Amino acid sequence: MSIQYIFEILGTIVFAISGASAADEKSGHDWFGVTFVGFITAIGGGSLRDMLLGSYPLVWINDVNFIYAIIIGIVLMRIMNASIDKYRREIALFDTMGIALFTVLGTAKTLDLGFHPVIAAIMGMFTAVMGGVLRDTLINATPVIFRKEIYATACLVGAVLFLILDSFDVNRTFNFVLSGMLIITVRQLAIYYHWSVPKFGKS
Amino acid sequence: MSIQYIFEILGTIVFAISGASAADEKSGHDWFGVTFVGFITAIGGGSLRDMLLGSYPLVWINDVNFIYAIIIGIVLMRIMNASIDKYRREIALFDTMGIALFTVLGTAKTLDLGFHPVIAAIMGMFTAVMGGVLRDTLINATPVIFRKEIYATACLVGAVLFLILDSFDVNRTFNFVLSGMLIITVRQLAIYYHWSVPKFGKS
Amino acid sequence: MSIQYIFEILGTIVFAISGASAADEKSGHDWFGVTFVGFITAIGGGSLRDMLLGSYPLVWINDVNFIYAIIIGIVLMRIMNASIDKYRREIALFDTMGIALFTVLGTAKTLDLGFHPVIAAIMGMFTAVMGGVLRDTLINATPVIFRKEIYATACLVGAVLFLILDSFDVNRTFNFVLSGMLIITVRQLAIYYHWSVPKFGKS
Repeated sequence: MSIQYIFEILGTIVFAISGASAADEKSGHDWFGVTFVGFITAIGGGSLRDMLLGSYPLVWINDVNFIYAIIIGIVLMRIMNASIDKYRREIALFDTMGIALFTVLGTAKTLDLGFHPVIAAIMGMFTAVMGGVLRDTLINATPVIFRKEIYATACLVGAVLFLILDSFDVNRTFNFVLSGMLIITVRQLAIYYHWSVPKFGKS
Repeated sequence: MSIQYIFEILGTIVFAISGASAADEKSGHDWFGVTFVGFITAIGGGSLRDMLLGSYPLVWINDVNFIYAIIIGIVLMRIMNASIDKYRREIALFDTMGIALFTVLGTAKTLDLGFHPVIAAIMGMFTAVMGGVLRDTLINATPVIFRKEIYATACLVGAVLFLILDSFDVNRTFNFVLSGMLIITVRQLAIYYHWSVPKFGKS
Repeated sequence: MSIQYIFEILGTIVFAISGASAADEKSGHDWFGVTFVGFITAIGGGSLRDMLLGSYPLVWINDVNFIYAIIIGIVLMRIMNASIDKYRREIALFDTMGIALFTVLGTAKTLDLGFHPVIAAIMGMFTAVMGGVLRDTLINATPVIFRKEIYATACLVGAVLFLILDSFDVNRTFNFVLSGMLIITVRQLAIYYHWSVPKFGKS
């Protein structure tokens, strides 16, 4: 079992928690609704990436461990429920670790399939944020990409660092850690100091 | 022409009616809008399943009869229009038959393609409910999976029965009928007695 | 570089502008949000078509020029920003040219892949309007297919003309121009005279 695999499973658990937590908070859904949203959040980004690239079979469809990871996330979330307000900051940190992980894994996979680095960066970012976009569409919240504090942009920045280091043949594992840390740092600083991307228009 | 094929075409007509009816009720759309929503409702679930599985070509893309079935559904819906309030209960029953049908067909297809039973159950449920989820996203209604009365959960229950019976080599047609009947029974009882899945959180 | 390729790139720029403009107007998003919506608007329709047809690799994934075209569209949009209200009619005309272009290109591609003409017409229309549907879902606006004035129906009409002329072996380029002009004419007349598709129901 490679470290990468363990990270993928952990990222899946984290995103299932984030999805379930958002669905429960928004409208107190039933067990099925919460699980469904957790599921879509966890597998949405990677599935969209692989469907866009035509890279079949999708990861979770050929490895049921990802389904079990989602169920574990949902159950964990239910157990923590009473104290979820206490752990709000830890959950935000988990989400940040999730997007960092999924960005570097998605970027690396796309690159390894032979696609252009620009496409790899886009796909890395998609892997990280598209599950959240689907979650927010389902529960009718403002899509995560429109969040005030820097979010998807941090993923893009990390993906670009990964691509630069990879072009210098930097060791993969080392590159994963460095690029992932950059995403986590940018995102956490953005939350702390309320950094945001400049407005586009004049309004 | 197999019985399964006739059922698929019937399910398509039923879902086109359900989609068209929802679009018309929500905002009195024009012919194009109503037909578009009916179309997405009818082909959405099966298309998503096949795109996730990488099972090309999609059924309706290689067999124009499904397109004609949708048009028949839309026209039927327009003809019944005056009396649609009278037939509200019959339409709900049709929708239930549609999800029962699509669940067992989707589960069987995924299993026959060689995927894990857990994936087959998820795909069966997706086939049944994802057209409705897309419909509700388009017309900006609460997604069908968040309905109060047991809905998608009935599909999952039916898919699990199908998988159990299949593992005992029960005759396919007999299994279709039994598992489909279970879905219809659970869903109709849920409507009648207002059964719902327990809430996830404490709120 | 074929004329068709130039048209595809131009259509991509136009749709990126239309997406960015809608996102900026709706809620004054930041640079990332506006670019993201412009991107989805530009590649959404063609990507959905190719994913439904199983036609891999997707056009923009194998040709980074489409990504650059989107960036050019976003930058152009930002430069014009001050005078965008002045050019509202020109932008609507651009959008119309975009849907005309994408309809005929999408119809032709689907036909050339060997699919049924009915599927080709649907896919041509999807290519033109689905990017806009995704854009409107993301920014929570009424989907473009529900617009009052004839929109997607004009694409269908143009696709049908293309298929009829193609069945008579009319020269491709000539057919592109004729069918595209029909879409532009129908859509512009619809805007001018407030033509709409008849309501479906009685409400």
